[in-house]
Amino acid sequence: MPIIECIPNVSEGRRAEVVDAIATAIRGVPGVRLLDHSSDASHNRSVFTMAGDAAPLKAAVLAMYERALAAIDLRTHKGEHPRLGAIDVVPFVPIEGVTMEDCVALAKDVAQDVSSRFGVPVYLYEEASTNPARKNLEDIRRGEFEGLAAKMRSEGWAPDFGPASPHETVGASVIGARMPLIAYNINLATNRVDVAKKIAAAIRHSSGGYRFVKAAGFELKDRGIVQVSMNLTNYEKTPVFRVFETVKREAERYGVQILESEIVGLVPSAALNATAEYYLQIAGFKAEQVLENKLRATD
Amino acid sequence: MPIIECIPNVSEGRRAEVVDAIATAIRGVPGVRLLDHSSDASHNRSVFTMAGDAAPLKAAVLAMYERALAAIDLRTHKGEHPRLGAIDVVPFVPIEGVTMEDCVALAKDVAQDVSSRFGVPVYLYEEASTNPARKNLEDIRRGEFEGLAAKMRSEGWAPDFGPASPHETVGASVIGARMPLIAYNINLATNRVDVAKKIAAAIRHSSGGYRFVKAAGFELKDRGIVQVSMNLTNYEKTPVFRVFETVKREAERYGVQILESEIVGLVPSAALNATAEYYLQIAGFKAEQVLENKLRATD
Repeated sequence: MPIIECIPNVSEGRRAEVVDAIATAIRGVPGVRLLDHSSDASHNRSVFTMAGDAAPLKAAVLAMYERALAAIDLRTHKGEHPRLGAIDVVPFVPIEGVTMEDCVALAKDVAQDVSSRFGVPVYLYEEASTNPARKNLEDIRRGEFEGLAAKMRSEGWAPDFGPASPHETVGASVIGARMPLIAYNINLATNRVDVAKKIAAAIRHSSGGYRFVKAAGFELKDRGIVQVSMNLTNYEKTPVFRVFETVKREAERYGVQILESEIVGLVPSAALNATAEYYLQIAGFKAEQVLENKLRATD
Repeated sequence: MPIIECIPNVSEGRRAEVVDAIATAIRGVPGVRLLDHSSDASHNRSVFTMAGDAAPLKAAVLAMYERALAAIDLRTHKGEHPRLGAIDVVPFVPIEGVTMEDCVALAKDVAQDVSSRFGVPVYLYEEASTNPARKNLEDIRRGEFEGLAAKMRSEGWAPDFGPASPHETVGASVIGARMPLIAYNINLATNRVDVAKKIAAAIRHSSGGYRFVKAAGFELKDRGIVQVSMNLTNYEKTPVFRVFETVKREAERYGVQILESEIVGLVPSAALNATAEYYLQIAGFKAEQVLENKLRATD
């Protein structure tokens, strides 16, 4: 059974009854598992994590739109987090037995139905993007809901699906496909925050580093140490071990050692297997050699 | 659903019809998956790999005895591999949602039934052993089927279950519980077989090395290199990464580099995860952080 992960971000993080109604709608779709949902009141935003095959996930996303249309009005919505729509972002992530192409096709299929059934304009992003200028979420979302009508009238901002102007109450949506994110931090055995900031700058894409790394340097004051905090956005192309080794080498430049690293939340087993493969110099390793994969594959 | 692996070794590797009848008997037990079976004619021995929960595995092992009793007579059996019985060795291995204690209990339960239903004496081995002198398979099997009657009469060799003398045609069985084995080889960028042999001696338990390592040094003549070939018999207590680092350090002593390593057959994901955790210095890592584990755990 293929497994796709879907992580819709919804512009409502204060009214528990609205969030609960959306969660209930997701749980009501057979074949979809709601793995997690969390709300942030200051962001006024909720993140739902669900998994399943394509058809059930599509049904769940459409059910979320029905609830959101009934309950969310962006004209009165305030929150710290930027947003373009009530169902702001819907990424599909290939996990098991499914390709990125499958997830791109699913994103387009869902976008088509969202626009035709609810009259909501949709922009495709990341791997589903049809336009290099509209690949990054931040670029698409710039100007937010309040600037959306004007943005949609400007050159190059006609949506991929749906009407040429925002939906009056729920704005627009950004739907697409991407690799799983790994939230990864490396703690340095120093209190020099300048070292963490310099290393972050050295490794992140935006300032010349690895293509799929976002990074920032922080102080962890209570522990008297500093941290290079990262999002690894494609662990196949920019693997964890290469980032780790680069941070280690850059830290040596300042006479600093790595104290420890931490994975925040979830990590795909393939990222860990690739790490073992690298350090142990394993030749010809295959995923089918992992005992648990073999046990699950046979039936 | 708990997953236990069971890998019975049967003293028949030449008559395909006997091997097939045993495989068919295993496949006929609901809840047991026969993952693999392979026969070696010169050893005159077959290895079956199956997985399932305790009760179905017990039923499958008992079905194997019925077939073996009908078809195998050790008085006329010849082969290179040492053996004590027709169903020579039956290890139970904890894989998922099951403890070593559960597997020990299962081994004893199966041993009890094998002895009472078929009149076959059983020795418990490895983690199920009740006697330090009878923990290792090699010690129990020494003397083989031909020396078994005399051995069973000698001090300290009454079986754990069943009659005090061998079954006339199928001898005795060794049943127990153990950790998964990892067959792991490290290839060295040299043609000096003495280096591989010295490193093997340095790391293996029998000559002063790690507790859960069996190792030998070989030449790979066609490739002009040498290999340290290992069985890692408890990857939790003697982890892969520690063995790798020790081999690497010992090789440096002779000016030799590691060319590559290889995992032969299956490896538990926990062994790979522990390797990633070690090299990336991950603090506080939990198995539930592996995305696939999380997806499977929720339902």
